[in-house]
Amino acid sequence: MSTNKLIHIERVNEEIARVAFANPPVNLISPETVSELHKVVTELCNDPKLKVAVFASDVDDYFYNHFDLAKLAEFPTPVSPEANPIWTDIVLKLTHAPFISIASIRGRTRGGGNELALAMDLRYASLEKAFFGGGSEWLPRFIGRDRAIEAILGSDDYDAQTAERFGWVTRAISDDNLDAFVSVIAKRFASFDRQALIGAKAQINRATLPKDEDFISSYREFSAAMAWPSVMERLRQMGMLVGHIGVGEMEKNLGYYLGARSRDK
Amino acid sequence: MSTNKLIHIERVNEEIARVAFANPPVNLISPETVSELHKVVTELCNDPKLKVAVFASDVDDYFYNHFDLAKLAEFPTPVSPEANPIWTDIVLKLTHAPFISIASIRGRTRGGGNELALAMDLRYASLEKAFFGGGSEWLPRFIGRDRAIEAILGSDDYDAQTAERFGWVTRAISDDNLDAFVSVIAKRFASFDRQALIGAKAQINRATLPKDEDFISSYREFSAAMAWPSVMERLRQMGMLVGHIGVGEMEKNLGYYLGARSRDK
Amino acid sequence: MSTNKLIHIERVNEEIARVAFANPPVNLISPETVSELHKVVTELCNDPKLKVAVFASDVDDYFYNHFDLAKLAEFPTPVSPEANPIWTDIVLKLTHAPFISIASIRGRTRGGGNELALAMDLRYASLEKAFFGGGSEWLPRFIGRDRAIEAILGSDDYDAQTAERFGWVTRAISDDNLDAFVSVIAKRFASFDRQALIGAKAQINRATLPKDEDFISSYREFSAAMAWPSVMERLRQMGMLVGHIGVGEMEKNLGYYLGARSRDK
Repeated sequence: MSTNKLIHIERVNEEIARVAFANPPVNLISPETVSELHKVVTELCNDPKLKVAVFASDVDDYFYNHFDLAKLAEFPTPVSPEANPIWTDIVLKLTHAPFISIASIRGRTRGGGNELALAMDLRYASLEKAFFGGGSEWLPRFIGRDRAIEAILGSDDYDAQTAERFGWVTRAISDDNLDAFVSVIAKRFASFDRQALIGAKAQINRATLPKDEDFISSYREFSAAMAWPSVMERLRQMGMLVGHIGVGEMEKNLGYYLGARSRDK
Repeated sequence: MSTNKLIHIERVNEEIARVAFANPPVNLISPETVSELHKVVTELCNDPKLKVAVFASDVDDYFYNHFDLAKLAEFPTPVSPEANPIWTDIVLKLTHAPFISIASIRGRTRGGGNELALAMDLRYASLEKAFFGGGSEWLPRFIGRDRAIEAILGSDDYDAQTAERFGWVTRAISDDNLDAFVSVIAKRFASFDRQALIGAKAQINRATLPKDEDFISSYREFSAAMAWPSVMERLRQMGMLVGHIGVGEMEKNLGYYLGARSRDK
Repeated sequence: MSTNKLIHIERVNEEIARVAFANPPVNLISPETVSELHKVVTELCNDPKLKVAVFASDVDDYFYNHFDLAKLAEFPTPVSPEANPIWTDIVLKLTHAPFISIASIRGRTRGGGNELALAMDLRYASLEKAFFGGGSEWLPRFIGRDRAIEAILGSDDYDAQTAERFGWVTRAISDDNLDAFVSVIAKRFASFDRQALIGAKAQINRATLPKDEDFISSYREFSAAMAWPSVMERLRQMGMLVGHIGVGEMEKNLGYYLGARSRDK
């Protein structure tokens, strides 16, 4: 296994791995994280013994956050213009991976981080400590067109109970029990034959997965939108605001600050 | 803006419009309403400043009701046989509209009125005063095959709490708070850039919209079914019943009267 | 109507039939049941008066269970290799049937039995006495990708309240009221014109049904998987366990015994 700075990997046993996002203070998706995550997911996919990978966070209050928009120009690009964007490649690899991926969500997850959680096979969220925002390609398929419009265009955070009710997460579990619950279910999956897990997942994928092309065009649209003058102006304003209030305050109440213009009117 | 008799339009500001259905006593979809609504929706779609349109009702106890089946022959027809039916054109325009449409639902909504509500981007329903019935093309996509069969074939009314649980509405909100809630969320959407709203909606549409052709054939099937002898006989019976009990009593308990034959057996 | 050993048919009146699975002690899907069920469903589909068929169980604690894997070699095969598998033909006939099918679920339903219940138009489950497991082709479409992965790969049983919350059943109803509720709704459907029921169902099917080919390949994959050495070994182990604890104990706690390997690790 490769060594990584921003993504920790721990092997519970040869069938179960624990992967933790670790980019303090607010677990943004940075260019380096994307490169590391791509390497990690590729390695996990090539591991012939692995049956279950649990994704968690080693940063308090944040599971996995949105893209670090201040570093947009530095994100890794594919080797050729025809190749899939690196981020999309991560999402697609994870979806079709020959193991079961479980997001064990404690803290905030938004934008790209939320899309990654939605690309995993299962999502268990801390009832008290998980909060959710945005994410454009997967979310409508799980919570429906109207609730996705409310969440994505409204940019507010949702608590875990609402997320469970909407179908955004598989289950909301009281924070005390989350780790034990995930550990038991990971072991249970690992008790089955790898071939059976892969076969059943492939069959379920056929019934439920969006087309690969949708993810690719989705990422391209996101990248293009980041270059719009109106978006760049809003990013500039948000950047100035971060200078005043600090990134911690900003991220803890992102919905509030994104909505500030509406309240000022 | 055009003047209308059966549809009221009020401009909250240049970014937000309020549209109200006003065809007392029970807000049926009449031939005139369809013509006016088509004009209103077309104008809203062509307004380069508009960001949010809130659709409500100015008739007590009814949001927007089913087609007025006594006037079936008078409904407007498209200019050529190849053109979309006018009603379908309204639904499609609304779905792809370059603004966010919000249904603020107080009172009963059924059949065509319910399909129109489901074609909007968001649905907020009065917990105490909203009731729902039927609607064949959109409903299965929101609440699933089985619950749609129960609702459409059973012809009963559903309260707002059940509607929220099934995914029929985005949220059920206590009647006291409904107007304030919708006003806040409309202003919040309007605080974002129009281009961003349109872009996000287009992306969500791609993931969730039925094909345009489905709406067109759906409306054609509905029109054809209205000419079946068995349907015409039932309509005739219902018409006689209205003569005895009045349209208000009939519409308030439509599910009961439609189901009367089953209880008499 | 044909006489059957393992499937009881009772005619409530000429518009409503009651079909009951009756293969004690645990209502397994045996080769004979498949042959009988195929005959029964074909006859019901050809009955020009029938409007509603209620499917129930005459075996305590089991609605309809998984395939009897000890008799895999004896299941009926289609007349030619190109024809649909008999089981798939039952599912497809039921889905497109010119009557409304209602599953009135009391007891456990799993695997193939659960898939059959999901192929029906409506599912009403005893709040206290219905339990659900597995089923690979329909389930993801009703409860979503993640919850289907949890249920199918985890092999645990779910109670009726969870099943209703996930969208696995139309409604969970207290056991006391289940029979009366189903009887009322069956009569209500039967009060409508048969042509209207068929037309509405066809329209809803168009919006919601998986492709026929998916069911066919799904059954073929299931049959193929049963021949995998790892699956055959697990079946052999389960068969030995049944010899020790009895089929009643095994079936009542199937999730526990399937998961036993994970707890022993």
